[in-house]
Amino acid sequence: MAAVPSTLAGTAVRLLARRAAPAVARRVATGAAATACRAAFQQRRTLTTTRASFAGKPVPLTAARDTSLQRATQYASLTDADIAHFRTILPGAGDVIYHKDDPQHDDLEPYNVDWMRKYRGQATLVLRPRTTDQVAQILKHCHARKLAVCPQGGNTGLVGGSVPVFDEVVVFLGNMHQVRKFDPISGIVVAEAGMILQQLDGYLADRGYMMPLDLGAKGTCQIGGNVATNAGGLRLLRYGSLHGSVLGLEVVLPDGRILNDMRALRKDNTGLDLKQLFIGSEGALGIITAVAILAPVRPTAVHVATLAMPNYQAVQDAFVRARRELGEILSAFEFWDSEADKLVHQHLALRRPLETESPFQVLIETAGSNAEHDMAKLEAFLENLMADEIAIDGAVAQDQAQVDAMWAVREGIPEACAKDGAVFKYDVSVPVPKLYELVEKTRERLEGVKGVNDIIGYGHVGDGNLHLNVSAQKDADGGGARAVSAALEPFIYELVASHNGSISAEHGVGIMKPKHLHYSKDAEMLNVMQDIKALLDPNGIMNPYKYLPPRSKSA
Amino acid sequence: MAAVPSTLAGTAVRLLARRAAPAVARRVATGAAATACRAAFQQRRTLTTTRASFAGKPVPLTAARDTSLQRATQYASLTDADIAHFRTILPGAGDVIYHKDDPQHDDLEPYNVDWMRKYRGQATLVLRPRTTDQVAQILKHCHARKLAVCPQGGNTGLVGGSVPVFDEVVVFLGNMHQVRKFDPISGIVVAEAGMILQQLDGYLADRGYMMPLDLGAKGTCQIGGNVATNAGGLRLLRYGSLHGSVLGLEVVLPDGRILNDMRALRKDNTGLDLKQLFIGSEGALGIITAVAILAPVRPTAVHVATLAMPNYQAVQDAFVRARRELGEILSAFEFWDSEADKLVHQHLALRRPLETESPFQVLIETAGSNAEHDMAKLEAFLENLMADEIAIDGAVAQDQAQVDAMWAVREGIPEACAKDGAVFKYDVSVPVPKLYELVEKTRERLEGVKGVNDIIGYGHVGDGNLHLNVSAQKDADGGGARAVSAALEPFIYELVASHNGSISAEHGVGIMKPKHLHYSKDAEMLNVMQDIKALLDPNGIMNPYKYLPPRSKSA
Repeated sequence: MAAVPSTLAGTAVRLLARRAAPAVARRVATGAAATACRAAFQQRRTLTTTRASFAGKPVPLTAARDTSLQRATQYASLTDADIAHFRTILPGAGDVIYHKDDPQHDDLEPYNVDWMRKYRGQATLVLRPRTTDQVAQILKHCHARKLAVCPQGGNTGLVGGSVPVFDEVVVFLGNMHQVRKFDPISGIVVAEAGMILQQLDGYLADRGYMMPLDLGAKGTCQIGGNVATNAGGLRLLRYGSLHGSVLGLEVVLPDGRILNDMRALRKDNTGLDLKQLFIGSEGALGIITAVAILAPVRPTAVHVATLAMPNYQAVQDAFVRARRELGEILSAFEFWDSEADKLVHQHLALRRPLETESPFQVLIETAGSNAEHDMAKLEAFLENLMADEIAIDGAVAQDQAQVDAMWAVREGIPEACAKDGAVFKYDVSVPVPKLYELVEKTRERLEGVKGVNDIIGYGHVGDGNLHLNVSAQKDADGGGARAVSAALEPFIYELVASHNGSISAEHGVGIMKPKHLHYSKDAEMLNVMQDIKALLDPNGIMNPYKYLPPRSKSA
Repeated sequence: MAAVPSTLAGTAVRLLARRAAPAVARRVATGAAATACRAAFQQRRTLTTTRASFAGKPVPLTAARDTSLQRATQYASLTDADIAHFRTILPGAGDVIYHKDDPQHDDLEPYNVDWMRKYRGQATLVLRPRTTDQVAQILKHCHARKLAVCPQGGNTGLVGGSVPVFDEVVVFLGNMHQVRKFDPISGIVVAEAGMILQQLDGYLADRGYMMPLDLGAKGTCQIGGNVATNAGGLRLLRYGSLHGSVLGLEVVLPDGRILNDMRALRKDNTGLDLKQLFIGSEGALGIITAVAILAPVRPTAVHVATLAMPNYQAVQDAFVRARRELGEILSAFEFWDSEADKLVHQHLALRRPLETESPFQVLIETAGSNAEHDMAKLEAFLENLMADEIAIDGAVAQDQAQVDAMWAVREGIPEACAKDGAVFKYDVSVPVPKLYELVEKTRERLEGVKGVNDIIGYGHVGDGNLHLNVSAQKDADGGGARAVSAALEPFIYELVASHNGSISAEHGVGIMKPKHLHYSKDAEMLNVMQDIKALLDPNGIMNPYKYLPPRSKSA
């Protein structure tokens, strides 16, 4: 057992010293007064991705970066009559933003460019409806006129799905942000699509409930976009996917029909569960205008521990034990490798939860209804891990500052990696036992390839979800990064496919991955997806160029 | 506080006496040795619905009971060439059961008649494939020949969905019953559709996991049928719906194509989540041949309590508190009214958990990883309920016999009701606050109607799922029951619709409810369902006459 690390010395309670310095169990009250405590579980991790934050060098056109993209001739172009019609539908001030022939106009910038500043569309028209009926009228007109449409929520996606490619009409949902209904008995909330995740969670927090998903982008992303992209995030291990917690959707179909699948009941076996089709459909089948969600009760006790692990087998062993021994209170089980840890402490000024260097670190969070019970379970679990030499070292956070310090390391990894060079990010899932093998095989693959800085692996063990990042030297002519890219693709996709994995665990498809989809879905699957797309969107107006690959000739 | 009831006297620990007689916390070990304890949570509730149990008076033809049903002329009739072809596909002994022109043959009886002995089809051919490829060949032939098909699993449904109506070819899945894969790290299991739920759960029990659903019919029903009907059951409150826990499906489409949506990953955002369409599709879109399920860790501690409640508001208050104070360990919250309780003790020889008579009784079950913690939480919760006069009386089961005695009352209700007369059963869901109002309004409605014996309400509070049963006098000419029926329908469906509820919470649609579907789904929803049905099953061969109403003329 290493000495108490200087950074958290005097406050962090090391595992073996724990009995001498008993943990101060933290209690989180429910209700409006609990804001400070709530931060522990909720508002800790917020990316500043506001619409005002666009700055820096110009973002090239998406269509210029990928010259295989051509504007489809099937779509009409906007006329003055179209604009006049949209102004009739949307009489509110600022609800129609239009700059004829000037897609680079400042007013349009936040809608044409994604928050990573990687993709740029060429929309000249942004519509900002306030009601479902307005959305329906917009789509009805676009359908009849064959005007392509790009629905947009908080625009925080990572695959370019929420910005246009050419001159698609942007339909921005952020003006629809009301809570329509809340049932304090069941915790079922009905909210409009444009409500920001953090605001919706805050609304629920005041009533003793919480949103079943949590994302870094929570301060900007919208619940409609979360559902449209089937966002995963940090609580999936505990609260499951949106396919389980979304109880109802209101969707405007591409032809303007309103699909009211909004019973908002836990059980309803009356016909096909149509709402499921729209969860994760990335705007390809219509526009989600409202959602009903089953909110879990907000936990009143949250604890966090960091562990040093000797190898990936130990990470897996600890995970299995955590599911068994922490069971119902386990809310996060994250891991990262020593290379990720090195980058974090090289590029960011963070406190080290553990001094011991180790091949892997694990962060465990519990969330329950009784702080003493939860701490007792966590301590017993950690003690056994140490006694059985599965963990090398560990610490349990004793106060909010330590909770934050522990999460900061895990959450600092993407930022640290970005500071390390040009980053190639892969968000994949494979069976848990194969997770780290992907990193090892990628290291083998890149051995000797010039321009590689670092290869790191981290992610959500519980979900079988690996974030594999490769940082490479940025060079003006692109030589270094290009060589790395050539070595990585399709190598990684083939590797993931060989383990029957997913090439996009939670980030989605967008404009980035349609051509790689075949690594995760076979031709029959893609055919049926395309059939359903054609059924619901016969004119193909919804979010074109993205999500699904063009139908193969032989189909 | 009433005296200790004689039936459980000396063993049951009453709430207020609890401190003097501390609860003996029960621990349930994991692994194969734990069979006896596991029974508490798992094998307690088993209907004897074996295929051999058919007996009693003859079941009339479904088509004779409802003369609006006509065999559709679009379907071909079986020829000798068809039979010869099926024998080529299925060379195994007993895999083709065929009795030309003799649908009443004993061999066909278990496939033509449902387990309630309410519906009878007229199939002369039963096919029992052993592989997915055989299923694919069968459907390919049926599609080409326009032979109607009725897929069948354990045949334990309550709405006649799993037996044919006319001469549909029965495809029985029970010969496909292997576990294909199990990952002990994640708990993800891949099983063939015909595996019996209880066997699959037993397989998982031996490995420390469990199935996330539990049904009375578990000893007979098959996992493929569970998924095809989106079975709910007794654990939905804790483990959520199958839309969340099914991670993959293998489906044979109506034309014989095999849809391999079987990545079996917790996270996979690569295109439309097609498998969701088939969950709850009742055989209308294809045949499920294998499922991947995320199995939760098996709890090691289970506790049960019964409470006497003064009114329905107190039931709701107790539920909200239970979600908050028992939170992560709450696994069931069931209620029944005094009329249900009266019937149970009138018709069945059961021990009374409580002597106190009360308008409502509640059964609470907890399942967790630490018996002492769980019992402490349960006791504190119950004490507070008593102190605040929300509950009138209560008892915590101290051993397995008491656990069984408590569950026996709740589970005896349907049987007791059946002994009370001709039963009209409604399985509906509405928002929790409106749940019991349905029973009260039904009582008002039936006041003065002749032939009514009893009107009882019970169900899963946590799921907003009410079972409303009306027992009526059986009379030879059907007069009594017919008058009751006329008073009940469409009254109840309209009442449920007025609360935006579901007319079939968990039982599904089958042959029983297509014509009532419009009470829970509007015309736009039904149109899209019918479009998808037509897309995937253009010849309409899959499970006809059921599930969806005929397309309206105006659509």
